[in-house]
Amino acid sequence: MARDERGVTPQGEDFSAWYNDLVIKAELVEHGPVRGTMVIRPYGYRIWELLQADLDRRIKETGHLNAYFPLLIPESYMRREAEHVAGFAPELAVVTHAGGKDLDEPLVIRPTSETVVGEMMARWIGSHRDLPLLLNQWANVVRWELRPRMLLRTTEFLWQEGHTAHATAEQARDEVMLALRTYASLATEVAAMPVIAGEKTPGERFAGAAATFTIEAMMRDGRALQAGTSHDMGTNFARAFGIEYTAPDNTVQLCHTTSWGMSSRMIGGVIMAHGDDKGLVLPPALAPHQVVIVPITRGEPDEAVAAAAADLAGRLTRMGIRVHVDDRPHLSPGFKFNHWELRGVPIRLELGPRDLAAGTVVMARRLGNGQASGSAGGGQERAGKESLSLDSAPARLSFELTAFQAMLLQRATEFRDQRTVRANSWPEFAAAVAVGWALALACEDRACEDEIKAATAATPRCIPLDGEPETGPCIRCGRPSAYGQRVLFGRAY
Amino acid sequence: MARDERGVTPQGEDFSAWYNDLVIKAELVEHGPVRGTMVIRPYGYRIWELLQADLDRRIKETGHLNAYFPLLIPESYMRREAEHVAGFAPELAVVTHAGGKDLDEPLVIRPTSETVVGEMMARWIGSHRDLPLLLNQWANVVRWELRPRMLLRTTEFLWQEGHTAHATAEQARDEVMLALRTYASLATEVAAMPVIAGEKTPGERFAGAAATFTIEAMMRDGRALQAGTSHDMGTNFARAFGIEYTAPDNTVQLCHTTSWGMSSRMIGGVIMAHGDDKGLVLPPALAPHQVVIVPITRGEPDEAVAAAAADLAGRLTRMGIRVHVDDRPHLSPGFKFNHWELRGVPIRLELGPRDLAAGTVVMARRLGNGQASGSAGGGQERAGKESLSLDSAPARLSFELTAFQAMLLQRATEFRDQRTVRANSWPEFAAAVAVGWALALACEDRACEDEIKAATAATPRCIPLDGEPETGPCIRCGRPSAYGQRVLFGRAY
Repeated sequence: MARDERGVTPQGEDFSAWYNDLVIKAELVEHGPVRGTMVIRPYGYRIWELLQADLDRRIKETGHLNAYFPLLIPESYMRREAEHVAGFAPELAVVTHAGGKDLDEPLVIRPTSETVVGEMMARWIGSHRDLPLLLNQWANVVRWELRPRMLLRTTEFLWQEGHTAHATAEQARDEVMLALRTYASLATEVAAMPVIAGEKTPGERFAGAAATFTIEAMMRDGRALQAGTSHDMGTNFARAFGIEYTAPDNTVQLCHTTSWGMSSRMIGGVIMAHGDDKGLVLPPALAPHQVVIVPITRGEPDEAVAAAAADLAGRLTRMGIRVHVDDRPHLSPGFKFNHWELRGVPIRLELGPRDLAAGTVVMARRLGNGQASGSAGGGQERAGKESLSLDSAPARLSFELTAFQAMLLQRATEFRDQRTVRANSWPEFAAAVAVGWALALACEDRACEDEIKAATAATPRCIPLDGEPETGPCIRCGRPSAYGQRVLFGRAY
Repeated sequence: MARDERGVTPQGEDFSAWYNDLVIKAELVEHGPVRGTMVIRPYGYRIWELLQADLDRRIKETGHLNAYFPLLIPESYMRREAEHVAGFAPELAVVTHAGGKDLDEPLVIRPTSETVVGEMMARWIGSHRDLPLLLNQWANVVRWELRPRMLLRTTEFLWQEGHTAHATAEQARDEVMLALRTYASLATEVAAMPVIAGEKTPGERFAGAAATFTIEAMMRDGRALQAGTSHDMGTNFARAFGIEYTAPDNTVQLCHTTSWGMSSRMIGGVIMAHGDDKGLVLPPALAPHQVVIVPITRGEPDEAVAAAAADLAGRLTRMGIRVHVDDRPHLSPGFKFNHWELRGVPIRLELGPRDLAAGTVVMARRLGNGQASGSAGGGQERAGKESLSLDSAPARLSFELTAFQAMLLQRATEFRDQRTVRANSWPEFAAAVAVGWALALACEDRACEDEIKAATAATPRCIPLDGEPETGPCIRCGRPSAYGQRVLFGRAY
């Protein structure tokens, strides 16, 4: 694929440039007028809506209620929890002037909502009967970013933030793990991104949390993307905001709170986990158009072909398939093929007069026939083509979409597993994190973590939940390892 | 209903206090920490979600695509359209400090997004083939309010804002009317609020618009609520932001743009259009719980009743009815009846051991049997009860919910029509707007409009689209009338 044809730098040449080119060329996002902000264009926003609808259903099914808390938070609220303000102060955007006057107290635009939610929970919770309080909100947040990246790290982003309060530490921890499992299921089943779930080391915890859990996904350059986090706040915020309840024995107790978030950066993860030099590759569950029909009408418009395309689209729609007919008269089929390949449509159907006469339609999968490796080749779009009977096309496409979703997950899992190494020496470790991940024994010394980062750019991603017990010397300093098991290391977004 | 039982001031005593009490007591909203802001609690937010889902479907069905534009807008953008900045400058919240530094240029939090959308449209539109561009976003906006009211006028609120660009003035006007019809359908069919659709007089236009259209609904105190607006911007924003296209004849032309918005204030409208002294009355289309089942188990828990309630709930759910079983063991049936009446649940079912033995369940509608006037009486919750067969309950309840929705619309329409007067003299006009609306001939002099407002608190709500041609003397000053028809006047929220 020649670079100038689609204007996207090849992955192998510069993965970062590939990403930056692609998000713009595929019309997912646009740079906003303020540095680090983004416009999410309709094609990108539709992916977000599909992700959001699925996660919202999971959140509701597990008993959580949606609510909405204010954007503007008094600056003093941020200071009530010492570690929280220390973590977020450098990233705050501050309103000092409103309604034509200077404000008595500056207001911060929420970077996250623990403080204002904590204030409200303190008002709403009285008795043990009010617990657990299981809330969620879909909202925008602002964190001033020094090194913004579209979708991955923007000054403003969209997310959901769950906030819950519980009577006991055990119930809070159960909630934290429930949220983490929800995120892992979403990533795996919907985004086709296999993830490693685990606990963050103390140096990587959320500001104010007693423990932070994460799901980590591998991108096609071997880097890790933190795709969702779930925090056990202990009683830190309950103490700061007075979130208390009266127990059955009439004693007044502090609540145990949690929070957990998944954001629009997940879209960036989908792009980098599946995309190739031809553009996006979207999992059917998140594809705005799962199937695109391109009528092949060279020269004159063909009414019979147009009618057959519309009829097929109607039958696919009734099967619950998201289908789009690209009937733009002024563009060639070849242009349209490139257009939809760039945009990652899982399956393209080509329907011309000869196909129609034969009662068939030509199917081309975005990754070709058995091209699970996804290596881009000039003739790929020809290689994977297959003729389907028009009559049975809806049932067959329904199957193909399910298979495509499963194939993407399998491909991503194999890719990740190939690039994840149990490193037992420093050279092994350094080689592993240069192209992927290392599972290694490590001490819990922050200075040692900093040294590893300085030498390799890798950081501890998490202490995997499914790790086997193991101890030994730290991969870097040789002192006794901590955590009782291997830690996952990698370079990260 | 004694006031202290539910803590809500009667409507007749003080409508405004009734509203303020009710939104808090029914747990729809809570005051936020910053003056004029609100927390939307789960029960209120669920109403918003139902409204949003319905409107979002209508917006998509009419060919619009959702997108997301940034919250923060450079202050200079606001100044590019002179009338726009004049209208919004007094309400802006300004970020002057971010990421630990003073900003070179202050940023405003969007009060509305015409400016940033205009900037992007100018980038995205090249040819006539790019038109029409039909966008919508769901977002929060901030307007600094001097006299905030929960849901109706808050410093931050949730809304959708449609933004479109067209090749011709006629196409833009068609779009403006399409959006207005969409809002009118939503208000009527979903919120059970009859509305008058019409054009705003020049003094009531959106800042920067060439024409503004509105839907106006009557609240139970006779005041008007502007429940949605649709603006024809002409080429004002196209000129300010350079939104141009190349026509088929290769000339470069300015686009004609529109914008239109509906917000969380619609929830306030639903409350004030239908509520009574006992609390909310929710249209089934917007009720978080359309049916609540209260098991009647005085003293001991009754497993057979609990099982029958769960079974009935399952059958209703499968009919697509939103049902909730209130099985809280520590609360009496009477407490639960009040609880759900306050929250406006359309239909309550009472199921006790005797009902179960008879194969029946007791139904109580929120407005009783034939109590379409909705006058609150002490015995009302007894008056309207009826026994249903458990077997046929799902089909019957499906019918009852449809009937309840229709009854609310009919009641609100009759109420509005009774309080809308064709006023032909000043005393008639003043009497009409003291309790409702007046249709009157009026001049187009702003000073005369101001005099009417000073004398009666009424403002021109709109020039109704379905008005008959008519001219004559202005109701206030006697000079010749403008607009060629009667204008709708009323006091407004």
